[in-house]
Amino acid sequence: MSEHLAVKAGELDAADDLGKLRELFVLDDVVYLDGNSLGALPAHVPGRVEDVVRRQWGELRIRSWTESGWWTAPERIGDRIAPLVGAAPGQIVVGDSTSVNVFKALVGAVRLAGEGRDEILVDATTFPTDGYIAESAARMTGCTLRPLTPAEVPGALSDRTAAVLLNHVDYRTGRLHDLPALTAAVRAAGAVSVWDLCHSAGALPVGLDAHGVDLAVGCTYKYLNGGPGSPAYLYVRSGLQSRFDSPLPGWNSHAEPFGMRPSYEAGDGAVRGRVGTPDILSMLALEASLDVWDGVPVEAVRAKSLALTDFFLECVGAYVPAGRVESVTPAAHAERGSQVALRCDDAGAVMERLIAAGVVGDFRAPDVLRFGFTPLYLGFAEVERAARVLADQLTV
Amino acid sequence: MSEHLAVKAGELDAADDLGKLRELFVLDDVVYLDGNSLGALPAHVPGRVEDVVRRQWGELRIRSWTESGWWTAPERIGDRIAPLVGAAPGQIVVGDSTSVNVFKALVGAVRLAGEGRDEILVDATTFPTDGYIAESAARMTGCTLRPLTPAEVPGALSDRTAAVLLNHVDYRTGRLHDLPALTAAVRAAGAVSVWDLCHSAGALPVGLDAHGVDLAVGCTYKYLNGGPGSPAYLYVRSGLQSRFDSPLPGWNSHAEPFGMRPSYEAGDGAVRGRVGTPDILSMLALEASLDVWDGVPVEAVRAKSLALTDFFLECVGAYVPAGRVESVTPAAHAERGSQVALRCDDAGAVMERLIAAGVVGDFRAPDVLRFGFTPLYLGFAEVERAARVLADQLTV
Repeated sequence: MSEHLAVKAGELDAADDLGKLRELFVLDDVVYLDGNSLGALPAHVPGRVEDVVRRQWGELRIRSWTESGWWTAPERIGDRIAPLVGAAPGQIVVGDSTSVNVFKALVGAVRLAGEGRDEILVDATTFPTDGYIAESAARMTGCTLRPLTPAEVPGALSDRTAAVLLNHVDYRTGRLHDLPALTAAVRAAGAVSVWDLCHSAGALPVGLDAHGVDLAVGCTYKYLNGGPGSPAYLYVRSGLQSRFDSPLPGWNSHAEPFGMRPSYEAGDGAVRGRVGTPDILSMLALEASLDVWDGVPVEAVRAKSLALTDFFLECVGAYVPAGRVESVTPAAHAERGSQVALRCDDAGAVMERLIAAGVVGDFRAPDVLRFGFTPLYLGFAEVERAARVLADQLTV
Repeated sequence: MSEHLAVKAGELDAADDLGKLRELFVLDDVVYLDGNSLGALPAHVPGRVEDVVRRQWGELRIRSWTESGWWTAPERIGDRIAPLVGAAPGQIVVGDSTSVNVFKALVGAVRLAGEGRDEILVDATTFPTDGYIAESAARMTGCTLRPLTPAEVPGALSDRTAAVLLNHVDYRTGRLHDLPALTAAVRAAGAVSVWDLCHSAGALPVGLDAHGVDLAVGCTYKYLNGGPGSPAYLYVRSGLQSRFDSPLPGWNSHAEPFGMRPSYEAGDGAVRGRVGTPDILSMLALEASLDVWDGVPVEAVRAKSLALTDFFLECVGAYVPAGRVESVTPAAHAERGSQVALRCDDAGAVMERLIAAGVVGDFRAPDVLRFGFTPLYLGFAEVERAARVLADQLTV
């Protein structure tokens, strides 16, 4: 059995057009299945960061705000991310954390929805920070917050609904939600959609423009490999930008930031999502990291991602004793992101042993083993090995 | 005249105990008087950043959140900044931009002030972002915003006053405001004080604890040399922390962040000011940068700062034709920060010529030449040269 799957892994790797991208990253003998938490380091990034620190900061100092393009980095890098999530240029700005961007987006969404709409729907199974921030946004805009599952959203929409905050892929189960259908339903109800792309951007096509998404946020340190805590991004559909009213109108979003005017006047376009001075080191490390995407079609990434998770599930099915783990990730491709989550009672202890044995995933309380599959640098032989080592650790 | 001042500069440099710190920084022949905008690069920082990128991110990857101390960096670095602003440990957390922290602080202040207080006083001469954010905080908390000069604050305080946002040092004029007296007045009125320390931290003693300041924010890329856009910080007085109610309750501030609980419960202490995942590269560059402060008393920094600005004003008085420029920085030490601002009609053009001639300050619209004096790496001979070159450019 093991031999058959090892042979199959070799065949899959040989046929993998994206396999050559692995050499763009710093990797070792560990099977790294945690790229959905922190992406691996692209090999050329340290040199680029060194240039930013030594030359741009150290030698040019203040001149770099113009000469090294620091000031315009948030929009410029936003435009680099745009094709990966199906957005035309000029709609994405990079900066702040995902949580801060959720706040901007949700408050902005409620203001866009207008008078008389006073309810925010939020995915009850969301990564917690979205729910916490949604609660604050609701409190500060006089809305009520209604947590529910994404499947319940269409039935819950009404003329009271102001905004709906959903995750494209669930952080725990890896379930991919139906963004086109849910976005259309939200729009049909006259409400404003806000999507969290943390667990989908860089792993599968998102199609923000094509599906008429209103607002979206996402992080850049998972499948986009931007580095630890690299800045998040905010997408505001171009048709909404002139009415987007940020709760964090910092000077970077002003129409004339260096005019030092006492009264606020929002700038035009994506810049309206900026707040304060961007964190340049993290931001330019992210910009460098995005080079690995040059010429890589997101569709090819999606195809490999599904092949990786399919193969992992096949190997787990073959190696792990029946009933020892249960996949909480949907089997259907249309409902699966780029991770596999396995429930098992002693998940915390199992993950510790697994990491010690050279297979890195992560544990999500209370009982989930989470494995992320990053198509840019993961091979099928590693997937087979991961399942084999997992089986060993589960039968200790 | 020139000779006399050049001799005096040499004497001042020879007597300068802090003079040896200059070698800790990357500097060149330029006279860099813009450290109040972007501090110079400490020479050891590139190596530290390289370690963070290559080893901590590249090799340890996700393990660095615990093994490299990433997760606790915001509080740990806050405690490094604390002595520079006169705060006991456990009250400062690093992260986000100054603008975002102003929002947290002001909304938090209004909530601390309690029912019946619905007015926010804000320095009308403030760096604009504070005013823009204050307007948003007022709008979202149902308060009215009242801009006024710091001198007008004591007379404007009432039992309606919820919060007062003031700058310790004015970004444009360099005027140092009376933090102890104003804080006491705000407190006596039952309101909550919020100080912006961007232009004072690292240049002069602040004494947050000693003067009973309630909340404070500041950036770290000016006198603290943390690098371009390095994260800002938030101070919440220990006695207020248990009641501090952040408008941005992201998962990093949760009592049990990895519990992934659907309901929010604020953590204890400074951590309550955290929001989302910290930007590690920028944050650890800042941490490294703070090493230059080891063993440096803030009082000595203040003494040298005043000597530098005194000497610059003396040289400008000697070299520049009378009436060509007018200092808008107070002559009295008690009212002066660590910069000198000179008004002149053609300030924009003059600053361009000055920079081309190797003296870097900055221009603040509409008519101010701004020069920052960073005691850690600036010498008196440079100050004399700057004034001489300025006089040349003013008489072109």
